[in-house]
Parts: sequence; structure tokens; C-alpha cells
Amino acid sequence: MPIVQFVPFSSLVQPTLWHKLTDLKIDVLKLSDAALPITASYSIGRSVHDRETGQEIALPCNLSVGSESFEHDHKPPHGSVSATGTLKNYNTIEEFKAADKTALFNQEAQDVWNNIIKTRDTSQLSRFLLITFADLKKYKYYYWFAFPAFVSKPAWEIGEEGWRKASEEFELSSIHAQLRGQSSPLPYFLIKKDASGGVSIAPLESYEEFYASTSPEAQTIGFVDPSADPNNPGWPLRNLLAYLRALYPATTSTLRILRWKDSEVPSTPNASWKSQVGTLKVGDAAPIDPALGRPTAVGWEKNPQGKLGPRVADLAPMMDPTRLAAQAVDLNLKLMRWRILPALDLDKISSTRCLLLGAGTLGCYVSRALMGWGVRTITFVDSGKVSFSNPVRQPLFEFADCLDGGKPKAECAAASLKKIFPGINSSGHTLAIPMPGHPIPPSPASLAQAKADVAKLEKLIDEHDVVFLLMDSRESRWLPTVIGAAKGKASLIIIVLNAALGFDTYLVMRHGARASSLSTGADGKPHQRLGCYYCNDIVAPADSLTDRTLDQMCTVTRPGIAPIAAATAVELLASLLQHPEGLYSPAPPTTTAAAGAALDSDQEGINSVLGLVPHQLRGFLNQFRTMPLVGAAYDRCTGCSETVLKAYETEGFSMLLKAFNDAKYLETLTGLDKLFQEGEDALNAVDWHEEGDEDDF
Amino acid sequence: MPIVQFVPFSSLVQPTLWHKLTDLKIDVLKLSDAALPITASYSIGRSVHDRETGQEIALPCNLSVGSESFEHDHKPPHGSVSATGTLKNYNTIEEFKAADKTALFNQEAQDVWNNIIKTRDTSQLSRFLLITFADLKKYKYYYWFAFPAFVSKPAWEIGEEGWRKASEEFELSSIHAQLRGQSSPLPYFLIKKDASGGVSIAPLESYEEFYASTSPEAQTIGFVDPSADPNNPGWPLRNLLAYLRALYPATTSTLRILRWKDSEVPSTPNASWKSQVGTLKVGDAAPIDPALGRPTAVGWEKNPQGKLGPRVADLAPMMDPTRLAAQAVDLNLKLMRWRILPALDLDKISSTRCLLLGAGTLGCYVSRALMGWGVRTITFVDSGKVSFSNPVRQPLFEFADCLDGGKPKAECAAASLKKIFPGINSSGHTLAIPMPGHPIPPSPASLAQAKADVAKLEKLIDEHDVVFLLMDSRESRWLPTVIGAAKGKASLIIIVLNAALGFDTYLVMRHGARASSLSTGADGKPHQRLGCYYCNDIVAPADSLTDRTLDQMCTVTRPGIAPIAAATAVELLASLLQHPEGLYSPAPPTTTAAAGAALDSDQEGINSVLGLVPHQLRGFLNQFRTMPLVGAAYDRCTGCSETVLKAYETEGFSMLLKAFNDAKYLETLTGLDKLFQEGEDALNAVDWHEEGDEDDF
Repeated sequence: MPIVQFVPFSSLVQPTLWHKLTDLKIDVLKLSDAALPITASYSIGRSVHDRETGQEIALPCNLSVGSESFEHDHKPPHGSVSATGTLKNYNTIEEFKAADKTALFNQEAQDVWNNIIKTRDTSQLSRFLLITFADLKKYKYYYWFAFPAFVSKPAWEIGEEGWRKASEEFELSSIHAQLRGQSSPLPYFLIKKDASGGVSIAPLESYEEFYASTSPEAQTIGFVDPSADPNNPGWPLRNLLAYLRALYPATTSTLRILRWKDSEVPSTPNASWKSQVGTLKVGDAAPIDPALGRPTAVGWEKNPQGKLGPRVADLAPMMDPTRLAAQAVDLNLKLMRWRILPALDLDKISSTRCLLLGAGTLGCYVSRALMGWGVRTITFVDSGKVSFSNPVRQPLFEFADCLDGGKPKAECAAASLKKIFPGINSSGHTLAIPMPGHPIPPSPASLAQAKADVAKLEKLIDEHDVVFLLMDSRESRWLPTVIGAAKGKASLIIIVLNAALGFDTYLVMRHGARASSLSTGADGKPHQRLGCYYCNDIVAPADSLTDRTLDQMCTVTRPGIAPIAAATAVELLASLLQHPEGLYSPAPPTTTAAAGAALDSDQEGINSVLGLVPHQLRGFLNQFRTMPLVGAAYDRCTGCSETVLKAYETEGFSMLLKAFNDAKYLETLTGLDKLFQEGEDALNAVDWHEEGDEDDF
Repeated sequence: MPIVQFVPFSSLVQPTLWHKLTDLKIDVLKLSDAALPITASYSIGRSVHDRETGQEIALPCNLSVGSESFEHDHKPPHGSVSATGTLKNYNTIEEFKAADKTALFNQEAQDVWNNIIKTRDTSQLSRFLLITFADLKKYKYYYWFAFPAFVSKPAWEIGEEGWRKASEEFELSSIHAQLRGQSSPLPYFLIKKDASGGVSIAPLESYEEFYASTSPEAQTIGFVDPSADPNNPGWPLRNLLAYLRALYPATTSTLRILRWKDSEVPSTPNASWKSQVGTLKVGDAAPIDPALGRPTAVGWEKNPQGKLGPRVADLAPMMDPTRLAAQAVDLNLKLMRWRILPALDLDKISSTRCLLLGAGTLGCYVSRALMGWGVRTITFVDSGKVSFSNPVRQPLFEFADCLDGGKPKAECAAASLKKIFPGINSSGHTLAIPMPGHPIPPSPASLAQAKADVAKLEKLIDEHDVVFLLMDSRESRWLPTVIGAAKGKASLIIIVLNAALGFDTYLVMRHGARASSLSTGADGKPHQRLGCYYCNDIVAPADSLTDRTLDQMCTVTRPGIAPIAAATAVELLASLLQHPEGLYSPAPPTTTAAAGAALDSDQEGINSVLGLVPHQLRGFLNQFRTMPLVGAAYDRCTGCSETVLKAYETEGFSMLLKAFNDAKYLETLTGLDKLFQEGEDALNAVDWHEEGDEDDF
């Protein structure tokens, strides 16, 4: 008699499985390579009609996995049955290759065996193993399936009649109806005829009760057969046979098997039922003795080359490049949470909308560091055009941007960000920020323009969470400082970050937040309100731009200063956003020793998960040194004092106009003018920030 | 009688004048606005024939200036005469506008007058004034000429005959020959006929001697006339008349004037001499009395709109944009020397040829900072391709570079630099650097490839002055460390700069130079030889790449770390290059206080003009802190010890091959293996650089 050949499972992996695995790996599994439960499904085998030869061609016995395979209580699709398995994803290709595959396979086979002999549960009969390595940088997935199946010795043979039409022996429409009636699909089932010739079915687990009064010859065991091959049954039959031989050896050396192959009742008179029945015998067989241990198992899947080896799914070519880029950028950030900083709140950073006032050297470098942190909304404001000296220092511009008079810097910078990362939400606004000491000409048109410019800046600040002051003059920082500080009391909290350059020095600072209920420490006492850019000044900002010589007009700086200051400003923002008190986080002590101690002990909530959140940092390239500073808010400050903020809130544009037009207005308003008269010494304390001269320190 | 009208000078500024002024301003004048001597020239007036009307149209009386105008002993072109003047260039447009033009003009007129009455020298009769403001960022030049000419009261009148052909009175070919025979061209000259009817000429200065026996009626005064207008003589005649009236009042109230207008002898019979003669009278004139002071002067040039006001030359549209970019980039750097650092040797930096090993985050940022310093030769080596996660962190790549599998990084980075600045000499080489612990497969092809790769790297290092180690693994730095250290003894000195990143930390260092005669301090004692990247290690570099998990494969860092480390490395190089001892400059003390003191006192030559030149800098973003370190060279170092260097120099590639293939070779060679056995403790001192974990510090 011919030996029964079984058609092995063929894995069918939907790309959604890999997408889901990618997400799981990055967000949940991280470095874990613990085994995961996974569910697959298979259905009745299908064949296609070959028009040329007129023959039916059987399709492979697909075991299908997809994104749903990771769902805990996944129900298989209609007409399919579930198979459960184990997924083991390795961290490196080397681990994947070096994995002890024999041990893994045997473990899985043992699980199947244990389920048979200990619980008689059939749900684990088609267990499978999937080992993977996901190269998330290249979207290449290495994988290998195993479908452990027990080997029968000697082999099963099929009677001379072979597989014959089951419809000649059973009323298949009744079986079909009963299978449909199950609450969950039965991959295996028992069949018997009653006295009137009707059939009834039952789950395999009820073998003893169901066949209690049925002679072995009248027993038929059915299974959902994924094989459409008329001569060879599918893989699930192997473990079904092993199950029966192990548990019911006395009655199973000859078995009538129904290969259930009808997902639908034949619809046309010409069509016929496809299910087949055959009689299988295992010759001279000693029954499988569970006490002797489980039988040998086989079942590693061959790869498309027909060899025992892993397969590769390369998803990169089929993915939308823009989406690939977005995932790649996220990946780099999420990896931080795998090992180093599980507590890092990346969304808090990436969802922060940043307004960059100035698209010069600082603005370009700041935007790049923000993109590195995954920030998705970046808006530039600048009034200039790209000039020939810009590209070598301003990393969003190139030579072509300088031609024909130069592109507008803000719009050009925004467009560059999109070229770098299409997923960014970037925009640019050409806008001249009105400044104290730069009077607005009294013509109605000039006034209307200034009013419109102020309104536009107010609106832009409203629409963002952070304002970076990255201009090249002292007085241009005044208006956004006032607006930003005023908003600090409204529902919207604006973080103002400031970076300014000298020749080989820089200042990076966060403006202190206006008093608020949030601004108390753990001890209930109010935090010291931190100062703004103008808090150390005893003169109001005024015109420093007119009458500048060339070396004062150009920012004459050591080229390394801008990237250092810009990156420091962005990292200060990142640390600030991670601090539970955010904008109101207190400044750490300024001596390095004390700060180091604070970092070690995390005393009084000074630390964010990223470390200290200083108030001001001054850097000195001639010593390669950075110095933290803390400065309190000054009640006569022309930028953030309550006097100024309230005048702005009460009078609006008319107050601002006074500040622009009248060189003395702000000093009179704040009372600085009286202080000023107290001594000529005051005159020497010129603001250093744009002077480009370290001697002023 | 009709009043004589004089045709004023028209300035003709060659663009070369502005280019020369630009160079002078940037390199020599800097912030100075002191008056400069300048030379112009004018020639005999020219006219063109209007074919439509058949008339001759006189061209303007051009006074021409160009780059030669700044030359000290400039000779005017053939057929032209010189005029000297004063150029005053202002630093700002505001100063230019606010200049006291009346005072400047009167000063110039006074100089002319003083020359007349004190020296009788005619060379200053056509003095002129040029005030300018050069907007070097936009290549716009604002300028205004004045040609002071004295006003005669009453005005000069011309006889009824007007200007008639001089050839009817004089043998002009003789005058032409005599003018040609002068050693330097005569703008003004005296003419008299001798008894035989021949003419002779003499310089104006010899009036008294030459005309000693000539009656006033027989005297004729000639001048080179820039006016081609037949009716109106050119501007130089005004001051000639004033000269004559002031010095020889008795004989000059009626004057015969020859307008010399023949640069060539008429060549064809139909052509005729162009020079004219006329008799001028100043009616009822009291002679100019020098004792009464100089007469009123006029002569500011009108602008093209016909108004008294400055002109603008906008050179930007006519300049080659690539050259514009090169000048703009240089300008930003040279401005450093105007005020802040006159001693800065920019050429020393810009002529340094830099080899960047690694075109990733560090490589991209390093190249940008180098470009900012004006470095013109930048070469990248990388073996990778641009991937989707790169552009947001690596500022030479954009989204489009990632498509179709990604461009080769080294070549793509080099092309980007050219897009930023076309004047750069950048190139990229896709090359995998062989590494210890990564054995070369024994096949002849693999061996040949490794040998070729080593040879290529050796050649590249030979062709550069500085090697930056910017890779992402410890062991890939070994080969260039050895080659670079070995070259340190050859005629070629290689500076090796190293930057490595952790999650929120970085290391930037310069490798110490091999012992040399240069490596002694001012006291004659040898400097301490500084260590290399491997000097602190007690195990040889080995395979750290295989079997890395995703977060180890990707450089998981705070995005701000790379720009800070890269800029710091470049600034360290800039400081090093400015130090008189360069590569051999000693490291400053490591405590900030001591370093600060060193900076202040410039003790023992520790300072460069840019400040300190540390050996190592370690940065910590969690504290926003930078720490200088000094490490001595280690005599068992696997990277730079003499044992290793000599083995490399003696055995060449075969020694390197042992290091690549045999994990223990370097440790045995240096004797580290014996040390290693001394204690298991050693095992814990794992190199931290690529660990991405600050806990290892």
C-alpha cells in the first residue's frame, strides 16, 4: 500500500506583520528577546484551474500571519482555523544565526506533545515556531518558520482505493451545517452515522464519549485540510494521527479519515463536493507509548531556494519613502528609551511647536537640532535674503539660494527643512520686527505696516509653544521678549529661549516665567523668578544697528560658536521640557561642584530626566569652558517687569509705539532713568552680547 | 563777447577700482578711514560720428580711475596725463552721508591754491576728491567726485572769432613731436614762434624764462583738452587760467589759448588737425591777488539724474557669482582681523587640507565648521550609504539622497559641500577601513582588497595635513591612528583629531605628536608626549560591531551632542594651528582656575592667539559642562607606542594584517597581555567611548 505523503505548511507573511513587529520592537519589546505568543490561521486548501492544461493546480498549504497575529483574542477569519505559535525576535543578526534552533524546535515539539498527553487539548496540535531578526534601519526582516510534526514509525499507508469522494459516503451538507454551527471553528472533528443514516459530529476531545457505542469501523475522523492536492493530505493530519495513536492506541491502527475541503456548499448542479475520505493503516505498529517519550518531530520550513534556511522580507522597496523617513527618524529617538532613558517623554518634545526668530547662523543650527529631537512644527521669521557669505555658516542655505539677489531667508529655510525631512511642518515669514530706538515714520502707511507686523508677531507667538530669540541685535529681541513674558500669565505658556554670540563667546538662556500658581517649590515657597535678557541692563534697548562698521554688521565670530550655542539652546529646551515643572523649574546652583552634587542626588527636584536645567549658560571658546549663571528677574527690567507687561497689556500697540519711537520711554516707564542719573559709571556697563568682544566680560 | 563755458570732468570708474578698494579695505585699511592718495588720468577729448545726422558728437570729458589708481608711481597710459587726488572711504553709509563735504572740498581747493602760489607746481592743478562708502556685503559702492575749479570774477570771454583751427597759425606737427619728446606728458605748456616761423614749447613752470623776450601778444598757452566740444574747452583750463592770473597778472588779462586736441598726426590727406586756438579776455579785471586768499571754487560732480549727489556702482550683477561667494566667505573671516585679532593667521587655517574619516553626524558638522573657517580642501572617507534616518542629524544630506537605496555617503557629502560653496575642493572616497578584530578572509581577492584599502588610506593621509577620526566604532580608528602617528616623524606632520560620542557625552582630543626635535619647551626640556585615543586602554581594539543591538548600531545620542563635539574639534584645530608650536604645543593645566590663569598671563607659551589648546575635552550635556583632561602617551599603547609604530614601519602591511586577523597580536606585541594577566580587575575598565552610557565615566 502507498505511504501517505503530507503536504507541509507554507508560511504566508503579510507585510502588516512586519510593521506591527517594528512598532512592538521599538515601543514595547525594546531590547527584550523573550518569546511572544502569536496566532496564525489556515483554511481549506484552494486550487486554481489551469486553462492551458485544463488541470486543477493545488495552491500551497498556507499558514498565514499578519498584524492581527499579535492580538490576544484574535478570531480567525471566516472559514479559517487558528494555530498558535511562538515568536522569538533576536536583537542582532548574529544572535539570530547563532540561535540553538534544535533546542527551540524540540521545545516547541515537546509543548505539542505535552498538550496531547496531559490535557488532550487539540488546540495546540498545529503549534508553530517563528524566529526573526528585524533590521529596522533597512526594513529587512529575516525569519524562519517551523511546524513541528511527529514522525510515525512505521509510516502510515493508505488503502488501495486511495482518497475517494466523501459525498458518496456521507451527507456532506449536514456536516457542513454542523461545522458552521460551532461557536468556534473545529480544526478536527469526529463523525458517526446514526441509525437513520444521518451524520453527527463532535470535537476530537470527546472521542471516548462520542464513540462509546460506535465500532472502530464506523468511526471517521475529520480535519480541516489546507491541502488542495487530491492525493496528499495537509500537514495537520500528522499530529492528528499522532494524537490518536498516543491516546487511543487500541482503536486507531486503522483509521477512516475525512479530509474536509468544502468551505461552501456546492452552488451549481455541475459543481461537486471536494472533501475526500480515505482509510489509513499503520502496519505492524506498536502503539505510541507516551511513557517512552515523544516521537521524533520534523518541520523546519524550506526557503524559496528549496533549502533549509531562513527567508528575508525586504520591505524597503514597497514602502512610501516619506513614511520610511518618518519611521527612521522616530526610530533613532525611540532607541533612547530602550536602555538609557526609559522615562524620557519624547512626545513632549516632538509635539512642541517652535518659533525661530532669525533664520541666520543660529536659526539654521537650532532648527537642525530641533529636527534631530523629532520636533515637527518649526516656523522661521526673518526679514533678510540669503547672501553669498551665508551658506558656509548657515546650514540650511546653499550657493544657488544666493543668486538673483538671494531668496528670502525665512521661506528658504522652511523649504530646506522640507527637503531634509518631508514630514516636517515648516513655514517661513518675511517680517521685520519693530524695535525700540528705531522710530516708525509717522506716515499712515508706515504706522499701518508696524501695526500689522506687531499683530503678526503676536499671532505667531500665540500659535507656538516656544519662541527662540536668534537675531543679531539686542533691540530686536525686545518685542518678542515682552509678548512672550506677557503670555506667560495667560493660558498659553510661552518658553522663550535666547541665544546670542560674541566673537568666541555665547550666551544661552531661558527667560524666567511670570509669577504663577505653578511657580512654587516643593516646600510651598515661591521659586525665585528668573531674569530675562534685559534684566541685567540699566539702559533700555536702543538703536545699535545704524552706523555699524562692516565688522559690526557681519557677525564676526569663530565659526564653531554658533553650532555650539544653537545645540546648547535646543538641549536646554529638551531638558526643560522633561522637567516636571517645565518653564517653572528652578535653576540649579551655579558652581560646578554644587551642580554635580545636585545631579547625583537629584535634590529638590532640580533634575530633569535629561539632567540639569540651568538658567543661563555662557560659553568661552578661548578656554573651551561653559559657565552656568543664575540671574533673578529685575523689577525695573525693560523687557519683563510687571510695569512693562501691564502697560503693554493695557495700552497694546500704542504703548509699543511709544517704545519704538521714544528713546527714553522705557527708561522713564521703569524708573531706570532715575537710576541712570545716579552715576556716570552706569554708562560703562554696555551690553556685551552683540559686541563681539570678549573684553567686555 | 561770449562768456567761456567749461565742460566739467565726468568721472569714469573702472570696476577694477572697486575690486582693488575692496581688497585694500579688507586686508589693509580695515577700520581706517584716513585719506588715501589716488591717481586718475584724462586724455584728449574724443568724439564720435553720428551717421544719421552727419554730425560729430563730443564724448564726456572723462577722468578715469581704476585699480592702477592706488599704485604709488603709476604712469598714465600713452596719450593721457595724470591727475592726483584724495580718496576718503567711510566705514558706514551714515558716516558717508553725514560727512562735512564743504570742509573736505574746501580743503582740496585750498591744496590746489597753495600749490599755485607757493610752489608754482602745475602737477596739482587738476586735483580731485573722491569720497566713498563700500558696502562689501552687497558689492555696492557709493561714491562722489569733486573736481575743484576756481571761479573767475568777472568771467572769461572769448573773442568774436571764437575757437579757430590752430593749424592755420602753428606748425602743429612740430608741437606734436615736441610734446611726444617729453619725458613725462605735459598737461599744460607754453608756445612761442621763433624768428624763422618755427615753434618751440616749454613747461608752464618756465613762463618767466621762456617768455622773457616774448611780447604778451606772441605768447600762446596750450593745454591737453579733454573736451571734444568745438565750442567749449574742458575743465583743466579753469585752474590754468587761475594759475596764470594769480602768478602773472600783468601779462594775462588777454590770453591766446591752444586747446591741444591731437593725439595723433592726421594720417590721411582728408583728415585735418583738430586742435583749436582762441583769444580769451577777462574784462575789467583786477588781477587775482594771492594775498586776498583763494578764489571761490566749484566742482562737485552731478549724478546721472543731473543732481548734486552721490552715485552708486552695483557690482553684484556683473560679478561671477562663484567669485562673489568666495569673496564673501573670505570677508567674514578677514573681518576678525580688523578689530579683534589682528594677529590671526587665517591662511594657516584655510590652507590646511583636512581628511575626514567618517561622513556621518560628526563628519557633516565638522566639514561645515571647517568651511566656516575658510578651509578649502576637505576629503571624506566613508563606506556607507545615506539612509532615511540620516538627513535630520547629518547636515549634508537630504531626503532625496536616501532614495533608491541611498547615495554613497562620502561622495554625496563632497557634492553637498560644492553645492554650498562652489569654490571648495572636496572629494569623497567609499572605502572600508580594515580593523583589528575583523579578520580579512584568506581568499586572494579579499587580501588584495585589504591591501589596496590600506594603501589608499596611507595615500590619503599623505595628501592631507589633518586627519579627523569621526567614525562610529573604536576599532576603526586604530589604522589611521597608527598611520598618523608614524607620519609624525616623517617630513609630513599629521595632526590627528578625534571626536567620539556617548548618549549625552563627548570626547574631543588631539593625538600627541611623536617625539621630535620640535618637541621641547621654551626651557629646552622635552614636552610631555601627549596620549592618543588608545593610550588609556589596557586591551587592544577588537570587534565591537558584530552582534550589536539596534540601539548600539545606531548612534543613540542627544541630537545636540554631535554639533557641539564637531564644532569643538574644529575650534581645537584652529587654536592648535595658531599656536607657534602647532602639533607640539603643550597642553594647558586641566583645572579651570589654572587654565584661566594661564590664559590671562600667557604663561610659558601655552596660549595661541585664539586661546588655550587643550589635549582632551570631555563634555557632559546632563550638566552642560566641559572638562579639560591631559593624558600622557603610554609606552604599551596599541595605537601610538614606538613598538607598534616601528613594527608598522618595518613590516608594513604584513604587520597590519596580523593586527586585523589575530585578536591577541597587538596585546602580545605591546606587552599588554602580561599586564592583563595581573588582575581580573582590568577586565572592568572597558573603553567607554562608544558605549553611549555615562555611567561608565
